[in-house]
Amino acid sequence: MIGLEQIKELASSSPSKIVMLIIDGIGGLPDRETGKTELETAQTPNLDRLAEQGVCGLIDPVSPGITPGSAPGHFALFGYDPFRFSIGRGVLEALGIGFDVKDGDVAARGNFCTVDNTGLISDRRAGRISSEKCAELCELLSFVRLDDVQLWVLPVREHRFLAVFRGEELHPEVTDSDPQRIGSAPNVIGATSPEGRKMARLANQFIYGAREILSRHYPANMVLLRGFSQLPSLPKFSEIFKLNPAAIAAYPMYKGLAKLVGMKIIETGSSPGEEFVTLAHRYDEHDFFYIHIKQTDSAGEDGDFYRKVKAIEDVDNALPSLLGLKPDVIIVTGDHSTPALLEGHSWHPVPFLLYSQRCRRDKVGEFSESACVSGGLGRFPAVDIMPLAMANALKLSKFGA
Amino acid sequence: MIGLEQIKELASSSPSKIVMLIIDGIGGLPDRETGKTELETAQTPNLDRLAEQGVCGLIDPVSPGITPGSAPGHFALFGYDPFRFSIGRGVLEALGIGFDVKDGDVAARGNFCTVDNTGLISDRRAGRISSEKCAELCELLSFVRLDDVQLWVLPVREHRFLAVFRGEELHPEVTDSDPQRIGSAPNVIGATSPEGRKMARLANQFIYGAREILSRHYPANMVLLRGFSQLPSLPKFSEIFKLNPAAIAAYPMYKGLAKLVGMKIIETGSSPGEEFVTLAHRYDEHDFFYIHIKQTDSAGEDGDFYRKVKAIEDVDNALPSLLGLKPDVIIVTGDHSTPALLEGHSWHPVPFLLYSQRCRRDKVGEFSESACVSGGLGRFPAVDIMPLAMANALKLSKFGA
Repeated sequence: MIGLEQIKELASSSPSKIVMLIIDGIGGLPDRETGKTELETAQTPNLDRLAEQGVCGLIDPVSPGITPGSAPGHFALFGYDPFRFSIGRGVLEALGIGFDVKDGDVAARGNFCTVDNTGLISDRRAGRISSEKCAELCELLSFVRLDDVQLWVLPVREHRFLAVFRGEELHPEVTDSDPQRIGSAPNVIGATSPEGRKMARLANQFIYGAREILSRHYPANMVLLRGFSQLPSLPKFSEIFKLNPAAIAAYPMYKGLAKLVGMKIIETGSSPGEEFVTLAHRYDEHDFFYIHIKQTDSAGEDGDFYRKVKAIEDVDNALPSLLGLKPDVIIVTGDHSTPALLEGHSWHPVPFLLYSQRCRRDKVGEFSESACVSGGLGRFPAVDIMPLAMANALKLSKFGA
Repeated sequence: MIGLEQIKELASSSPSKIVMLIIDGIGGLPDRETGKTELETAQTPNLDRLAEQGVCGLIDPVSPGITPGSAPGHFALFGYDPFRFSIGRGVLEALGIGFDVKDGDVAARGNFCTVDNTGLISDRRAGRISSEKCAELCELLSFVRLDDVQLWVLPVREHRFLAVFRGEELHPEVTDSDPQRIGSAPNVIGATSPEGRKMARLANQFIYGAREILSRHYPANMVLLRGFSQLPSLPKFSEIFKLNPAAIAAYPMYKGLAKLVGMKIIETGSSPGEEFVTLAHRYDEHDFFYIHIKQTDSAGEDGDFYRKVKAIEDVDNALPSLLGLKPDVIIVTGDHSTPALLEGHSWHPVPFLLYSQRCRRDKVGEFSESACVSGGLGRFPAVDIMPLAMANALKLSKFGA
């Protein structure tokens, strides 16, 4: 596999523009009655015409059979090997709620849980307390006093929360307190390297304080922490690809992932139409745009086949305003499949479409899972998308002589 | 990916014969009016019949989106990972003009350039002097006296030349003198390791002498050197694959690349017909033949769509004499695509055809980019071609028990 170092040597800047449209969770599975997936059920004349003029294929975001989380899915789309680059659970939760993690902060994923009167965990999720209750308890926990560090305790959803520690010399090399099973006591957090000792001490101090406060809040009478992590150090997208990249995304997680690789985040409304208007307004300022559409994935996660169909049709309806800008290269794909049938992310390869004046057109005349099987690009790893986009934009020079 | 060490353990010698026909730059892009590529436009009844009897696919010489130079393209065809094995610019230039580089020689790529009267570079290519002028100046530079080493200064084309240093204890660990920009003075060459000191001193001595001689030859009044390199150390093709390989190629670059992996070079005329006659004459002497056809690539590089069509038809017309030898395995593909539309190498996957008695035939009935999309081999990396050829020749034993 080609590495970022090699791509960096081959890449050069030029006026051509690349638009990468990510329709989150676009891949699906057929409805049992019609035999058609969400994408195949949707009326998508604009995507179909683009597929006809472009070249299609299927991508594996991570590896065949592997269901990607949003982070590895996006790393691959952005050209970063998802096995080489990763992001800790704590930082991921922070991105998901839009907390502005700074270099040096340590973030941890928290669960409210239930312990019995001998201190053993009887429910790792505290009976899935409501998000409102979670917010209330997080506010109380924010008052835990820690030596020399700032603390944030922020609600995520139901029993889930985020804890962020900010101070001098904090390192995330510590163990989890969450034993990941009931019937055990929460673990005392330990350092896995000498640098982690301060963080371990503070985390245990936080847990001690939290237990005091929560003792009157059964079933949420204890906390479990895991995934202590800091912002990963990623090579900048702009330095690798010599692009001036912007992200048009409405949801915190995707803004956060784009920011991690150094993209400029452009605020936008969340509907496809609003996102494409944002694109048009800012089109002159950048040569690479990542546009993230969330509604398809949400509908898939909810198992709502026809809401996902409608969300795809919304993208298609709005598409002409994007096409009217005449980007040199247009990519349409997803970061993973989210079949409504499975109510969650899945391992199925994702339909992929590339349009440029220099692509080698194939015979695919509609954008769908079954048509993309016969696409001219075949099936390939998502991490190869960026080199392919760069090549079609004539921004990559020859490898070797 | 399987490595050469593993292939070596599985490979064994047998009487079966493999012919690898490389039609340089065969992949193309459709003509805007007809919608057909060069290969799709050409009348190729013999290749089509072979495709019908064989199995097809598309190869990525290096990696999706990456445009290969001839060296990495050929390394992959010969089964050598083009990321693991590479060749320096100086040695590549030497291969290209057929200079017989010996182990221990250091070769550098040179440019004639223009410096102003303060010594700053004003034109890195000396106004692209003619190849004749280049030859004349190279002859003058051959008289630069260097301590204890032999020197060759040989014209390549226009402002480009080759410098080869032969002597005791020469190592290529030195920096370039070419700063790759105008407005700077040429760099003094430095050693990047203690072993490189002698070479750095000699290179600077050469540049000093060259400047003296060239002072009366404005605009070519200075030289720039880069890509100091020695012959790479490559495992021998014969030892890995247990084959007795021969190369039938008319152009120095391809003879040079084949020689690097230890193939026997057979002299030949350059037309497909002449090359296939050469093959017939020497068919009993080897069990692996690499045959290189250049005309397709040259026509593509010149942007001459119909000359490339004609060059492909010439191969097809001559093909029966090759087929008449009844090789056990026939491979037909290219080292990269060279679409006339792009006037150069490109990143597009390359049509691939394998014929053997034991291949699993597919439904492809013609040899073309669009037909190969549906080929039984799908899209795969070129470095896998050799194992596939060996398997079809029944020269590879089972991996693991």
